[in-house]
Amino acid sequence: MLKLYIGNKNYSSWSMRPWVMLKQANIPFEEVMVRFDSFDGNSKFKETMASVSPAGRVPVLVDDGFSVWDTLAIAEYAAEKFPDRQLWPQDAKARARARSVCAEMHSGFSALRGNCPMNIEASLPQAGGLAWRKPEVRADVQRIVAMWTELLETHKGPMLFGEFSIADAYFAPVCMRLKNYALPVPGHITDYVRRVCSLPGVKAWIDQALEEKTFVEFDEPYRTCR
Amino acid sequence: MLKLYIGNKNYSSWSMRPWVMLKQANIPFEEVMVRFDSFDGNSKFKETMASVSPAGRVPVLVDDGFSVWDTLAIAEYAAEKFPDRQLWPQDAKARARARSVCAEMHSGFSALRGNCPMNIEASLPQAGGLAWRKPEVRADVQRIVAMWTELLETHKGPMLFGEFSIADAYFAPVCMRLKNYALPVPGHITDYVRRVCSLPGVKAWIDQALEEKTFVEFDEPYRTCR
Repeated sequence: MLKLYIGNKNYSSWSMRPWVMLKQANIPFEEVMVRFDSFDGNSKFKETMASVSPAGRVPVLVDDGFSVWDTLAIAEYAAEKFPDRQLWPQDAKARARARSVCAEMHSGFSALRGNCPMNIEASLPQAGGLAWRKPEVRADVQRIVAMWTELLETHKGPMLFGEFSIADAYFAPVCMRLKNYALPVPGHITDYVRRVCSLPGVKAWIDQALEEKTFVEFDEPYRTCR
Repeated sequence: MLKLYIGNKNYSSWSMRPWVMLKQANIPFEEVMVRFDSFDGNSKFKETMASVSPAGRVPVLVDDGFSVWDTLAIAEYAAEKFPDRQLWPQDAKARARARSVCAEMHSGFSALRGNCPMNIEASLPQAGGLAWRKPEVRADVQRIVAMWTELLETHKGPMLFGEFSIADAYFAPVCMRLKNYALPVPGHITDYVRRVCSLPGVKAWIDQALEEKTFVEFDEPYRTCR
């Protein structure tokens, strides 16, 4: 059975991507939750993850003792192992475009990620308003809006490439951010966010994130409980 | 014919990756050089690239009018289009591992990248010495050394996965950095760097970088000519 190592569901946007992908595609896996304590070299989190992958980060997919790390490599591995699930679009150009936008997410959108970190159970419209004053955050959101608009028009929805694909799993954490930070986006984008949130695989992640009773102290120092 | 849009060969580490991959695999392509002027929204560079890809960055591979952006998506596109070139390792686990390390490079090693930007024609041992004082740069280099050591041992060299693959193209700019900043690494790593530099596809890039007569003013404000 596949094992997927992940961080806290409320915070770990990188963990959310492959978890949602596997769940939504009905690929069975065992979840191993490694809660964030701190990112110091000698933290329990780092210690545990170092034994699973030399990169030392979540998520990691372990297949019969073989570790695949990084979301993009996990996505490609699952797509190759389960070709019938059609995790990437079947058309070669659509597939190339899906990989382009996923790779763009993988190394980009640092302003949005830095200013609006994923925090599923929190409603943060004030923090969102402050973030929105920054031109680099607005530029990131504008790019997201342009990308999704074009893809939804080209492939006629309901998902970015028609049916659910890795790309929707990849942008699910962005949907969380747009929603929880109440960033102003056009109606058809809000509609897409709503559709993503009601996918069974995404809904399951959100429900389990809301049930978590822990919070990350070093990330939210102003908090004493949840 | 494929077209590959790239930035200056001396500086653009992201452009180097797919160029080296295509060249080394003998895949014919036309090169379109878009020189960096500045990264402002209204620069000529940005204006040109915006007409080629909505992400607005180099490199972009254009196949009969269809744009594929981001190095990882370009690599996957070429691997699918030219299966006989075996751009990824043929063994499924080796291929997964190659994708893991490329994806790790894609979103990581920011300390090495920020402190030792690629500058092929410059010898920068002093800058390298200063960079080496930073624990985060040393940690990045240590991870590179551990990764390469393990891969070279497992696959018996001469390249990371035995024969040349996308992974070697992906780490070619790191080879340039280790060499030009004279970062202290073990002998077997220096040997691998030397082997990478003498691959015809890498050598061609280096030779053409050295022939460039332009330099990027906003990157090297202390310089008046080259």
